[in-house]
Amino acid sequence: MSATSQAETALALHENMKSGALRVPDLAAALIAHIEANEPDISAWAWFDPDFVRAQAEALEKHRTEGRTVGRLHGVPVGIKDIIDTKRIPTENGCVLDKGRVPKEDAFVVSRLKQHGALIMGKTVTTELAFMDPAPTRNPHNLEHTPGGSSSGSAAAVAAGMVPVAIGTQTGGSVIRPASYCGVVGYKPTFGLIPRTGILSEAPSLDTVGVFSRSVEDAALLAEVLMGHDPKDRATSDLPVPGLLQTCLSDVPVKPEFAFIKTSAWAEADEDTQSAFEELVEHLGGQCVEINLPSQFGEALQARGTIHVAEMAKAYFAYANRGFDQLGPELQKAIEAGNRTPARDYISALDWPRVLDGALDEIFGRFDAILTPAATGPAPKGLGSTGNPAFNGLWTFLGTPAVSLPLLTASNGMPMGVQLVGQAGNDARLLRTARWLFKHLGGPEKAE
Amino acid sequence: MSATSQAETALALHENMKSGALRVPDLAAALIAHIEANEPDISAWAWFDPDFVRAQAEALEKHRTEGRTVGRLHGVPVGIKDIIDTKRIPTENGCVLDKGRVPKEDAFVVSRLKQHGALIMGKTVTTELAFMDPAPTRNPHNLEHTPGGSSSGSAAAVAAGMVPVAIGTQTGGSVIRPASYCGVVGYKPTFGLIPRTGILSEAPSLDTVGVFSRSVEDAALLAEVLMGHDPKDRATSDLPVPGLLQTCLSDVPVKPEFAFIKTSAWAEADEDTQSAFEELVEHLGGQCVEINLPSQFGEALQARGTIHVAEMAKAYFAYANRGFDQLGPELQKAIEAGNRTPARDYISALDWPRVLDGALDEIFGRFDAILTPAATGPAPKGLGSTGNPAFNGLWTFLGTPAVSLPLLTASNGMPMGVQLVGQAGNDARLLRTARWLFKHLGGPEKAE
Repeated sequence: MSATSQAETALALHENMKSGALRVPDLAAALIAHIEANEPDISAWAWFDPDFVRAQAEALEKHRTEGRTVGRLHGVPVGIKDIIDTKRIPTENGCVLDKGRVPKEDAFVVSRLKQHGALIMGKTVTTELAFMDPAPTRNPHNLEHTPGGSSSGSAAAVAAGMVPVAIGTQTGGSVIRPASYCGVVGYKPTFGLIPRTGILSEAPSLDTVGVFSRSVEDAALLAEVLMGHDPKDRATSDLPVPGLLQTCLSDVPVKPEFAFIKTSAWAEADEDTQSAFEELVEHLGGQCVEINLPSQFGEALQARGTIHVAEMAKAYFAYANRGFDQLGPELQKAIEAGNRTPARDYISALDWPRVLDGALDEIFGRFDAILTPAATGPAPKGLGSTGNPAFNGLWTFLGTPAVSLPLLTASNGMPMGVQLVGQAGNDARLLRTARWLFKHLGGPEKAE
Repeated sequence: MSATSQAETALALHENMKSGALRVPDLAAALIAHIEANEPDISAWAWFDPDFVRAQAEALEKHRTEGRTVGRLHGVPVGIKDIIDTKRIPTENGCVLDKGRVPKEDAFVVSRLKQHGALIMGKTVTTELAFMDPAPTRNPHNLEHTPGGSSSGSAAAVAAGMVPVAIGTQTGGSVIRPASYCGVVGYKPTFGLIPRTGILSEAPSLDTVGVFSRSVEDAALLAEVLMGHDPKDRATSDLPVPGLLQTCLSDVPVKPEFAFIKTSAWAEADEDTQSAFEELVEHLGGQCVEINLPSQFGEALQARGTIHVAEMAKAYFAYANRGFDQLGPELQKAIEAGNRTPARDYISALDWPRVLDGALDEIFGRFDAILTPAATGPAPKGLGSTGNPAFNGLWTFLGTPAVSLPLLTASNGMPMGVQLVGQAGNDARLLRTARWLFKHLGGPEKAE
C-alpha cells in the first residue's frame, strides 16, 4: 500500500477511503514514513507533526465508521502553504519577523478543507513573505535544483509523493512556475474564485490561490471545494461555484483548438523550451495556430510589476517598520521600488486588464485555450534563485485561469510544463481541455 | 400658469401633463420665458437653446396625444450638469480645453431621462472640470453670493425656478453644498446606485451622481429613474433598484430618531450654523441625541483628500498635458499634489471606509439618520470661492446617502441646509425620514 499511496491521485485515494477499502490511519502512516524518510533531503515542510496527522486520521476514520456522511475530501492528505492561516498551528509566512506566530482563526480555505474532511498534513515552506528570496526547499527531481517559488514546499511535497495535493498562491508566477519545475500539475483559477481571507496579503489586486496535484482531476476537485463567496474578500462574488470536476471529467465535445502564443517572454525562453514548443505545435497540427498578441500586452506586464511593488510596499509596511534589515535583498529592493511608485502610475496600471479584455475575448471566441510555456526553461541549478516568472505575470494580472501540465522533459532530464490559459470565469472548460491534452500527449493517465 | 410653473414640483407638473391638464409646450414656453428673463443675472446655463426645448416639448405632447404610454418623467424639465455627455449637444466640462466638444453618445443618465420622457432644458454650468475654481453662476437668493460648486448651475437653476429638478455630481461636496447655499433639496445617493458612464471621471472612487429639486419627493422620483446597473461602471451592481418614491411617500412607522453629529468640521462652522443647529436639536427634543464619532473619522477625511487628488492627477493627465497653464489655480494645485502622492499612501487611504463601516452600522442600528450641517454657513459673499465643503467629504468617501433640506435661514437672510445622512444602501428610508423632517419643520409643503 505504501508504495502506491505516493503515486495515487487524491480521487482514487478518496474513493478507497470512502468505501473503507483503505483506512485513513493507514494512508497517514505510510505518508508520514515517506515524509520522514525524504524531508531531510527536500525540506518541503515548515511545520509537520506526525502526532497531529495521526490524531486527525483516527478522527476521520471514526467519523466514517460511525456511518456519518463523509466530505468530498474525506481522508485526502493536503499540504498548505505557510502564508495561509491555520488555527493553533504556526503560520510564519516564511519570515523571521513572524517566528512563533500562531493564528487564532483558520483561513477560509482551511475551514473549507476541514468541512470536507481533508487530512491536513502540515504547512509547506514558502519563500519569505511569498516573494523572490529563495527558501531552503529542494527540487525532488534533482536536489541541486530549485523547486521554484514562492509556493516552493507545496510543489515539492506533491512532486515527492508526500501529499497528492497542496495549496499555494500566485501573485506573479508562484503556482505555475514551481509546478513546471517540479513536474506536477499546477492550477491558478480565475481571480476571485477562491477567497483569500486569512491569507497573507501581498498585492490584493493580484493575489490568487492555486493548487498543486498529480492529475488535472485532482486539481479540479480541490479547487472546487475551496471556491465560494466570502464577503470579507471583495474580489469574490456570490455567483454559483462552477462544477469543475464534473465538466473536467466529461469528454470534450469536439477536438480542442489551441492558440500558441509566445508573448514578449519568448526571448527569455531557453533552447530546450523553444524547440519543445515548436515540436508540440507541429504535433498538434491543425488543432494549433500561432497568433501574436498586440504589443500592449507587453506593456501590461510592466504595469503588473508596478501594481505588485506598490501594493506590497503598503501591505508589508509593518514588516518594513519592524525589521527592514532582517528582510531578504529581493524583498528589500521591491519594497523600496514600491515606496517610490507614484499613485498616478499605480492607478493607471490598474486600467490595463480592462483595456486588454476585448483582445482576449476575441481569442477565446476562436480557441479553447492559449498554449504557452509555463516557464523560461527547466528548474535552474542551485538554490540561489527561484527562477524566472516571465511567462506567468501577464495571466495573473489579467485574472485568467491557467494550468501547468508536466508534459515536457529538458535535455538535462528535468521536467518542463506546458501552460494552458483559459477565459476568465470559464475554468471548467479550461480544465476539461487540459485533461484532454494531458491524456492525448501521454501524461500519466495514458501510460496506465 | 407661468407664475405657478416655476414653483410647482416635478410630480405635480408631471401629473398635469400626463392627464393633459397642462400641455408640455405651454410649460416649456413659460420656462423658456422665465429663463430668458433671468439668465443674464444668474448664468446658470452652459448651453440653452429654446428651439431645441420647443421641439422636444412638441414631440412629447404628440407622443401622449397619440395615446402612447408616457414615461415616469413625461414632460418634466431637467437641467443637466455640463460634465454629463449629451449626444450632439456640446458638453464642455467647464474647461476651455474642451471648447466645442460634442459627444457622440449620451451618458447613461441622459439616456434614462430620454427613455422616461423628460424635457431636457439644457446643460447647466459646472466649475472647471468639476473642481474648486469658481464658475460665473450667481446665487438666485442674492446675486452677490456664490451658488457653491461644482454643480453651480444645477443648484441655481432649480433655486431660480428655471427647472423643477436638475442633475449634478459630488466628489467632495458638489451637490449637498450648493443645495444648501441655494435653498433647494440636494440628494446624493449611496455610492454606486447611479451609473456614471458618459460622465467626466474626476475621482472614480468618489464620483457620485446626485439631484437637485424643490421637494424630497421630486428628488426620489428623479434619482430612482436614474438608478440601475451598467456593466461599464463597475461601482454599480445588479441588485434591484430601491423603490425610492413609494417609500418616500409612505408615512414613517414611528417618529424618526436622529443622531446629531458635529464631526471634525464643526470648528469651521460659523455662528449662524452653530446656533441654528443647537436650536434645532433642542426643538427635536428626545428625538435627537448628540453623539461623537471616533477620532478616526477625522483622519478619514484627510484620506479622502489623498484619494481625490491622486485619482484626479491620473484622470486629468491628458488635460494637464494639453494645457496645464490654461487650468485654474485650484485645479493646478490639486493636480500637482496628486502627482506628488505616493502609491502607498493612496492604497492605504482606500482602506478607510471598510475600517469605519462598523461604527456607522452601530449608529444606524440605533438612529434613522445622522443630522449634521450641510455647509459651514450660508453661501459666502463674492464669486471668488465656491465655499467650504468640510461637512461633505466624509459622507462622499463613506458612500452613505445624504440629503440637504432648505430648513434654516442665516442672519443675512440666506438659506442654510440641514444635512441628513443615512445608511449605505438604505436610501429609501433616508428619504422618508427627510420628508418627515421637511414637513415637521415647516418646509414649503407644510406652508401650503
